[in-house]
Amino acid sequence: MSKRFTLSLDAMGGDNAPRMVVEGINIARARLPDVTYLLFGDRASLRPLVERHPRMRDVVEIRHTDQAVADEDTVSAALRSGRQTSMRLAIDAVAGGEAAGVISAGNTGALMALAKHVLKTLPGIDRPAIATYFPTTRGESVMLDLGANVECDADNLVQFAVMGEVFARNVLGLKQPSIGLLNVGVEGFKGNDAVRDASAILRGSNLPIKFHGFVEGDDIGAGTVDVVVTDGFTGNIALKTTEGTARLFGRFLREALTSTMAARIGAWLARSALEGFRIRIDPRRYNGAMFLGLNGICVKSHGSTDELGFAHALCVAADLVAGGLNERIKEDLERLISAQSEISAAVSG
Amino acid sequence: MSKRFTLSLDAMGGDNAPRMVVEGINIARARLPDVTYLLFGDRASLRPLVERHPRMRDVVEIRHTDQAVADEDTVSAALRSGRQTSMRLAIDAVAGGEAAGVISAGNTGALMALAKHVLKTLPGIDRPAIATYFPTTRGESVMLDLGANVECDADNLVQFAVMGEVFARNVLGLKQPSIGLLNVGVEGFKGNDAVRDASAILRGSNLPIKFHGFVEGDDIGAGTVDVVVTDGFTGNIALKTTEGTARLFGRFLREALTSTMAARIGAWLARSALEGFRIRIDPRRYNGAMFLGLNGICVKSHGSTDELGFAHALCVAADLVAGGLNERIKEDLERLISAQSEISAAVSG
Repeated sequence: MSKRFTLSLDAMGGDNAPRMVVEGINIARARLPDVTYLLFGDRASLRPLVERHPRMRDVVEIRHTDQAVADEDTVSAALRSGRQTSMRLAIDAVAGGEAAGVISAGNTGALMALAKHVLKTLPGIDRPAIATYFPTTRGESVMLDLGANVECDADNLVQFAVMGEVFARNVLGLKQPSIGLLNVGVEGFKGNDAVRDASAILRGSNLPIKFHGFVEGDDIGAGTVDVVVTDGFTGNIALKTTEGTARLFGRFLREALTSTMAARIGAWLARSALEGFRIRIDPRRYNGAMFLGLNGICVKSHGSTDELGFAHALCVAADLVAGGLNERIKEDLERLISAQSEISAAVSG
Repeated sequence: MSKRFTLSLDAMGGDNAPRMVVEGINIARARLPDVTYLLFGDRASLRPLVERHPRMRDVVEIRHTDQAVADEDTVSAALRSGRQTSMRLAIDAVAGGEAAGVISAGNTGALMALAKHVLKTLPGIDRPAIATYFPTTRGESVMLDLGANVECDADNLVQFAVMGEVFARNVLGLKQPSIGLLNVGVEGFKGNDAVRDASAILRGSNLPIKFHGFVEGDDIGAGTVDVVVTDGFTGNIALKTTEGTARLFGRFLREALTSTMAARIGAWLARSALEGFRIRIDPRRYNGAMFLGLNGICVKSHGSTDELGFAHALCVAADLVAGGLNERIKEDLERLISAQSEISAAVSG
């Protein structure tokens, strides 16, 4: 299959934009030699950044706009703010077929609302969800939703389970990924109505889904299941709690390894192993949250990331595009969603 | 003030009970020389464990019962299961004045329900909350609720904020602890109704509380605030996600430090610093979740903890008792709750 395609970028979104966007492209070029980029943003800022890198002009096209969505904009403000923001134009490029996927490090709520408005959701999906890879002791898992849907009912959670399953099968290449519902305990009576009802639907269904049941917060890192399903409030807090814990531990470890002369010498001897450890837990390696359930590929980069993190987000989007996976996900989803609708109807009836 | 008091223990609760209960007492004795213990549980199992330690019989009194609350019991089953379970008898000892506090590593839901039923809540508190210390880059914070209340409205969250504030002031000794509400973003429009309304009440009030506003998951480890307030669903998952992340990082670090000969030698040289790091992040150091809002001191140990963790839970309970802090908390709470009620009434009116 061909790997030639174009990604459209909101060059003005993110704390370190537009510099980290252009530098991120430069880092990603080695891994994505055949990808070209549409950069939406302020031409006067972008041109000198692009020109710092020889031959980058061959793969980058700047489309000027002087409007951008602000981080503090509400979703409704972003929807009202017109069609000329860098974020909106970057999404439009996907809808119009000019680009195969869009990446932004801007305002998450605005990106989701605009992407949903412009690209529309897949058939059977009420609400798209945000998903990300997660390191575990067994490899990698996927968790969703990470903040698109602050309040979720059982049907939303079941749809997330279906999307997560299809994603894990098609993108992670797992034959039969296991799905867990995040809860405060593994016993059936634990939790709120949404998780209990979602569990009943997933258990009662004969969807071709390997439903593990409830999992707890420590199962995320343990890799107990391949797909962790939760509402966007809980998922967002779990994700950011992990980031905070990682930072805390990194700091404690640094303090320990500089606390005595013996520790310093030991750390120096172990420096390449410690560097491997640092890279393994580097949150930038996991940058690039995927919006699932949309009729188009959309990846959200962390707002505070640097060029390395942004390059990873580009690779996440490119991976989704390169395999033509969105098409397979759509087909799988339609099949599963129609099965799920029958089951939901049977359960409610 | 005198430090002579008695703690009552559910000797049959927890995966490693009753052995870890008795061994935990033995470990805690050095730090708590004047504390005596009432052990509720199976005498035939407990006596040989106690007799392994010289002079432990001087500080331990065994009260026999052959009934215990099972981990898989629902709350209603635990409430129905009669007055002769080791958990119930241990709580009764506090209500009856024989003991100054109760500790159990058993079923959390049952412990909360029984403690609430027997000890009652403090005036103005609808629902008690579970709180724990948390390591941060700035020292220690407190987070609540960690699972007692799966669904919370704004009033519940405000009460948790008040309890957390009073606790941090009296137990952590902070002059003016800062309070944050856990949310998916720091902007005022983010989150669900409960957190937004709670924030409005806390901001609008002239309670003598330093309300920081919303905090995110990564603020927990950063120590952005002294008290992190959240509902029991989110709090439980944040806490366990931290534990899982800690385990994951410990494993990655071990793998790195045994990956090459240079790393092994380095780790050996740095072994005492690494041991200090290991101790610093040892979850057993943070074992002992406090039930706040009850008319009596009740501490829940992690069910899977060992004797070292259980000893820490004993110390947590002893610290709460030793300072006569529950009395000060009650006074402060009554004052704050009455102020809060006036404000809530003003807001709703």
